[in-house]
Amino acid sequence: MSERMRAIVLPRHGGPDVLELQELDRPTPADHELLVRVVASGTNPVEAKMRQNAAWAGLTPPFVLGYDASGVVEAVGASVRDFAVGDEVYYTPEIFGNTRGSYAEYNAVPAAIVARKPRSMSHEEAAAVPLAGGTAWEGLVRRLQVRPGETVLIHGGAGGVGSYAVQIAKAMGARVLATAGARNQQVLRDLGADVAIDYASDDVAAVARAETNGAGVDVVFDTAGGDNIQKSIPATRPFGRLATILTPTGTLAGLSSKNQTLHGIFLMREGERLREMARLIDQGKLRSLVDRVLPLADVREAHERLDSGHGTGKIVLRVSES
Amino acid sequence: MSERMRAIVLPRHGGPDVLELQELDRPTPADHELLVRVVASGTNPVEAKMRQNAAWAGLTPPFVLGYDASGVVEAVGASVRDFAVGDEVYYTPEIFGNTRGSYAEYNAVPAAIVARKPRSMSHEEAAAVPLAGGTAWEGLVRRLQVRPGETVLIHGGAGGVGSYAVQIAKAMGARVLATAGARNQQVLRDLGADVAIDYASDDVAAVARAETNGAGVDVVFDTAGGDNIQKSIPATRPFGRLATILTPTGTLAGLSSKNQTLHGIFLMREGERLREMARLIDQGKLRSLVDRVLPLADVREAHERLDSGHGTGKIVLRVSES
Repeated sequence: MSERMRAIVLPRHGGPDVLELQELDRPTPADHELLVRVVASGTNPVEAKMRQNAAWAGLTPPFVLGYDASGVVEAVGASVRDFAVGDEVYYTPEIFGNTRGSYAEYNAVPAAIVARKPRSMSHEEAAAVPLAGGTAWEGLVRRLQVRPGETVLIHGGAGGVGSYAVQIAKAMGARVLATAGARNQQVLRDLGADVAIDYASDDVAAVARAETNGAGVDVVFDTAGGDNIQKSIPATRPFGRLATILTPTGTLAGLSSKNQTLHGIFLMREGERLREMARLIDQGKLRSLVDRVLPLADVREAHERLDSGHGTGKIVLRVSES
Repeated sequence: MSERMRAIVLPRHGGPDVLELQELDRPTPADHELLVRVVASGTNPVEAKMRQNAAWAGLTPPFVLGYDASGVVEAVGASVRDFAVGDEVYYTPEIFGNTRGSYAEYNAVPAAIVARKPRSMSHEEAAAVPLAGGTAWEGLVRRLQVRPGETVLIHGGAGGVGSYAVQIAKAMGARVLATAGARNQQVLRDLGADVAIDYASDDVAAVARAETNGAGVDVVFDTAGGDNIQKSIPATRPFGRLATILTPTGTLAGLSSKNQTLHGIFLMREGERLREMARLIDQGKLRSLVDRVLPLADVREAHERLDSGHGTGKIVLRVSES
């Protein structure tokens, strides 16, 4: 008989209260996979979304949510060369078609999407990084290719993706303007933002223009959605680059006449990006904003907080002992 | 007393009949400028637009329209090194704030935005190239960076920008799908399109998907506007690139989840791009689709044809003898 494990199962779509702690069989790693004992799992807005509807990801309940993990390698598939039992690792499990996320004591994951955990971080801090930090890295480093001295406007700078984005943009040598609500203005400054903007009371585009002497910012990264891109175009210079992780609303007037480029960003899984981020983390240039750590059994509370949309930093689930 | 020249003046905004042939003083070139005797001037949709409203370009009548020219250098400013009297040249005059376009026998233009005319083209053919061909080049070569073997979907492939785009994409080694109305399907094939699509009777996105075995095209270049970009996103592969010379309408759903990039394209003036295009032209890989050549005095007829929006290829004004 297979060994068992604790896991949070989504038995049907619904509110936070549908999530159930169950005993499942431990997964068996395929030749290209690692078996990881999950110590901590991050939680993300996408999980709250999938709790209610996961058809877009090719999933129907029951399945196990969870797209952020840090843990310890327990077993190694026959064709895996780069990892050994006992390695501490972090990763973001695949979303599309994956019924076994990281809200579970054990995960079987392709070695190609795994990297060694940053040494300077606890498992709880590391579990907050892969999905949100990876999305920020993908946007700023690979797609927007921010250059030293550029001015970057980050919408939602105190949020999951945004808090990493502010730090990564700073590490790239940019001057950072970032938006958040009134109560997170100091959080923005603590993360390194040069200018903190209150999106509710300030005219964000006007501040961005004023801070660039009317020239407009070089780069915009939108992690909050809505009409942020539409409103940012007039505050971005000719040949400026914009990116969003959501579907922009409104008409993109000016994008063509100003020769601007808009990148859509969605994270594809891979180990290399996590290795690059681990270097930055161990150099002390990138940290996680962890709001609180909850035991796995308190997953409903974690999802209630995700639903409220008003947390500052990550809620991390403690899955097993480190 | 200054020497005089014939020019078409826009004395006030309105229909084609407001355009007037007048005698004006010839311009005097500044130190960084060339004085060019214009042999031929292309006509472009942007001129019909500016005939009705030019506030966006910082212009109020009276002024001289015309943003495409081929001619002969008549005089050279004191600091110009790369040109001599008698050189045959082509260029697109600045739009913003420029009251002296190319619907005139003489133009004073910065040497930096001028290049030698392709040897293999007449002045009439060359005058069709700079604005429309330059926009296609800017989009496909510099921004979209089309690679050999990629599949490129071009919306409006028989139009001013589109007809150059089809040829340039082919010269870059791409497989080209192009759209036009029913009567221009053969024109698309003559320009080199591998697949000609009737945008009125075919489902363009469905054809694009079918032609790529469901994978989606690599690149989309929209020269016709409206919802072409919105409808093209589902027919473009993940990490595909799209570009438009107009403001896209509709919601850009899928741009982020597919990691796509949208470039807005508007031509900035420079000589280097024209030198690069002249090489391609003289290699026989890029030709102008000239609908007809009209004498400068028939400018109203040229604008009536621009207003109709249904021409195939350029209407070129013959300004002086070559």
